[in-house]
Amino acid sequence: MTEKDQLEAAITAQGDVVRKLKSAATKDKAKINEEVQKLLALKEQLKQCTVDDAGEPAAPKPAGGNDSTPGNRNLSLKTPKGTRDYGPEAMALRQRVLDQVVSVFRKHGAETIDTPVFELKEVLTGKYGEDSKLIYDLKDQGGEILALRYDLTVPFARYVGMGNVFNIKRYHIAKVYRRDNPQITRGRYREFYQCDFDIAGTYDPMLPDAECVKVVCEILSEVGVGEFVVKLNHRKLLDGMFEACGVPADKFRTACSSVDKLDKTPWDEVKREMIEEKGLTEETVDRIGEYVTLHGGPELVDRLAEDEKLKKIPTAMEGLEDMRLLLQYCEIFQVANRVSFDLSLARGLDYYTGVIYEAVLLGGGADDEEITVGSVAGGGRYDNLVGMFNPKRKQVPCVGVSIGVERLFSIIESRVAGKTRTNETQVYVISAHKGLHLKRLEFLNKLWAAGVKAEHSYKLNPKLLAQLQHCEEYQIPYAIVLGDGELSRGVVKLREIATRKEEEIPLERFIEELRVRLSSS
Amino acid sequence: MTEKDQLEAAITAQGDVVRKLKSAATKDKAKINEEVQKLLALKEQLKQCTVDDAGEPAAPKPAGGNDSTPGNRNLSLKTPKGTRDYGPEAMALRQRVLDQVVSVFRKHGAETIDTPVFELKEVLTGKYGEDSKLIYDLKDQGGEILALRYDLTVPFARYVGMGNVFNIKRYHIAKVYRRDNPQITRGRYREFYQCDFDIAGTYDPMLPDAECVKVVCEILSEVGVGEFVVKLNHRKLLDGMFEACGVPADKFRTACSSVDKLDKTPWDEVKREMIEEKGLTEETVDRIGEYVTLHGGPELVDRLAEDEKLKKIPTAMEGLEDMRLLLQYCEIFQVANRVSFDLSLARGLDYYTGVIYEAVLLGGGADDEEITVGSVAGGGRYDNLVGMFNPKRKQVPCVGVSIGVERLFSIIESRVAGKTRTNETQVYVISAHKGLHLKRLEFLNKLWAAGVKAEHSYKLNPKLLAQLQHCEEYQIPYAIVLGDGELSRGVVKLREIATRKEEEIPLERFIEELRVRLSSS
Repeated sequence: MTEKDQLEAAITAQGDVVRKLKSAATKDKAKINEEVQKLLALKEQLKQCTVDDAGEPAAPKPAGGNDSTPGNRNLSLKTPKGTRDYGPEAMALRQRVLDQVVSVFRKHGAETIDTPVFELKEVLTGKYGEDSKLIYDLKDQGGEILALRYDLTVPFARYVGMGNVFNIKRYHIAKVYRRDNPQITRGRYREFYQCDFDIAGTYDPMLPDAECVKVVCEILSEVGVGEFVVKLNHRKLLDGMFEACGVPADKFRTACSSVDKLDKTPWDEVKREMIEEKGLTEETVDRIGEYVTLHGGPELVDRLAEDEKLKKIPTAMEGLEDMRLLLQYCEIFQVANRVSFDLSLARGLDYYTGVIYEAVLLGGGADDEEITVGSVAGGGRYDNLVGMFNPKRKQVPCVGVSIGVERLFSIIESRVAGKTRTNETQVYVISAHKGLHLKRLEFLNKLWAAGVKAEHSYKLNPKLLAQLQHCEEYQIPYAIVLGDGELSRGVVKLREIATRKEEEIPLERFIEELRVRLSSS
Repeated sequence: MTEKDQLEAAITAQGDVVRKLKSAATKDKAKINEEVQKLLALKEQLKQCTVDDAGEPAAPKPAGGNDSTPGNRNLSLKTPKGTRDYGPEAMALRQRVLDQVVSVFRKHGAETIDTPVFELKEVLTGKYGEDSKLIYDLKDQGGEILALRYDLTVPFARYVGMGNVFNIKRYHIAKVYRRDNPQITRGRYREFYQCDFDIAGTYDPMLPDAECVKVVCEILSEVGVGEFVVKLNHRKLLDGMFEACGVPADKFRTACSSVDKLDKTPWDEVKREMIEEKGLTEETVDRIGEYVTLHGGPELVDRLAEDEKLKKIPTAMEGLEDMRLLLQYCEIFQVANRVSFDLSLARGLDYYTGVIYEAVLLGGGADDEEITVGSVAGGGRYDNLVGMFNPKRKQVPCVGVSIGVERLFSIIESRVAGKTRTNETQVYVISAHKGLHLKRLEFLNKLWAAGVKAEHSYKLNPKLLAQLQHCEEYQIPYAIVLGDGELSRGVVKLREIATRKEEEIPLERFIEELRVRLSSS
């Protein structure tokens, strides 16, 4: 299927979702709105699919948009390409996942920092290889040349280097920007969150590295995304392996990016690329081929340590020693069953200098053949990046991991059955009949003063049924129903929304009684 | 003092702060780093103060920056003009304030949404009057013409209009961007947070408006910024007043922006501007002058309702009726003592259509003459903005408030004595002597599994003193000290860092015992 076909299919499916929601007996407006937004985004993508990015058509004019009334009557009603709004329900889900991620970071003692959304362009230049073309530049409006951040690692390295920080364990959760071809059907946007955890400082081998692996395992277990494996490898071992196979030193990085494609591309194709495009000999490539199929645990470290070709390469042996330690620490951290020493793991970025890792979800489960459904976290050691940003070129070794939260959001979103609560209101103050709005305000004020999350209708005389429906729609657990009859007897009705059970509570005790119920539910 | 003089004075003072910190007996590195950052920012500002924004000098070359080694050796080490990094301590303080703000928003039942950091340029065009020149444009890299958001109100109106949302109560906390001349000495940056709370929907008069005022009062009390007053006025009353004074209808808005200066400018100067620049007659301006000195409560509403000139102007009477209701609701919400109906309040933005308000802090306190130290929140009703973004031009009335959190951050920051905790670590696992790193990992793993926030040194054999100092520096409340002697007896030492009290705990009970202590402290 072409991208266009895929989009058309997705639009049909999404259209069905929207129609179904709209025809349901109880209408969930927030959900409908969310799904309509997705449908609109898909349609927009289809429209853009047919034109070249560089030659996008002028913004479409809404119907009747030819009049010349002032005030932007011809405004095109969309968010920028590859971006979207997040409504209350999407935000509630995202916040829940982010809270879980942060709580793991905090369990491991991390602090947080923040950096500006844009950097001097030169800070970003030369850090992302070919992908540099995806950087969003700001317009030169007189002054500095700026660009939106592309990831959180380079700003972190700048922060550490520029500030003469010599050790820090920090997390940073923020949006990054890439002028990529958005694939909204697969949840890939131009503006998206990254969640990074990094440890900077001069420490003993593999102690911080192992903790990063542990953090990844805890987060994926906590969020609950099913089975996963964290693939581990080492840049020094990769380089040593290339050397042992006869790759010239100046081709290590380019060989690396070929190997990096193995998760999506069959070996034959990667082999062809290495021979035809990278200019390696068939013999060399066949030797590489033998290594990159290997994966396992400590027994693989032992076996490679005895490998005749690798034994002669000191960097390979250094890498192996690190791997041995890392696997030992993973054993103690009880994640040995979650990790796999995998010689095919290469990672795209140039700046890694030591351990690299990548967590992938395993589809199937019951199935024998494990199908990986994509990377959800990745990282590694980068010991030479901070020095670029230090006035005295001092290096600070770093290791870190980036959690692919957007993937996690999508997974969690697709699993949610029913509506997610979007506010935290505990009680809704209801008028049973006309003329009670001042009383409502009085009750609200008492509730707020007591720290209770409370709301009411902003209409003077709302219908009782409309108020009750609001409680159900927003899943507000309790309502206080005010009525002249009850008030004259010194009581109010307390209604539990889910059960529709009502009871009368003396006015002077309504907050205490409410609190008891709230704390027990 | 010129800006340059002020900056030089500020640099001298900041230099003293840094020197004092550096010479202190116990060095707080994080704090020193924060203060150094501030010093560097001031110096940068001074440098830029002497050159025109449009003709900024090339980035300064670091010493020895003439070599041509690849890898950006000449990188200028700074954040973009008007921006800064936030280190762990600044972030911890900000997070604390934001949590308080959010908890008030949530108490009032608000949901949250998010919108992209950039918008189609045309969405922002024509919304900010003269200040439009401060919008950050993105470079045209082929595709859409984009700009960074300037506030959160216009994106919110776009979200509501575009999504056919008819009622929503939402908060949005995010950074906005203005290419203003940064005044770092006064805490004004080009990238800064806004915290907005808005209620969109067709409701009865003043019910949502009064709740916005209540929200402002709760937040300012909660955060604890001292005495404040929320000034209230109404655009319809202002317009009616202008009409009554003889201002032509097409000059209402420009008269409004003159009146808006009264909080910083004496009446004589505003009067001169209205006559000389805005072309109003002296008679008209003198009449305005009589009104704009008025401020008070419900008695002022009564008095104006009987005002011979205003009585004839229906819009003025409508505005007064709103004010009467608003003050009544404020009375019930027990914030009557916090608000002041003030005819000099005008607010700069064009899009307000009803109630407007602005919270200012009161300096002095004991002093009779109240000195306002600046606006910390502001907002109002804007009933005609959403329609611009709706395909069928449907209007959705809105009222909202924006909390000036950057001002709140500065106030709280200036008050903090001592170091703020930047992580949440509950226990640090210490080796009393060499050779215990595997044991440490084992203990850590148990603690993490039990949900305890725990850390250790990433060195194999750290010095005992260094480990204890780390606990003190980061204010970690407890340490578990591992030693062969204790371990062989089946116990560990639990040390309370603040009191240096140590006790032995049986291995099998150390987590339970730790939990008891953590929950009681």
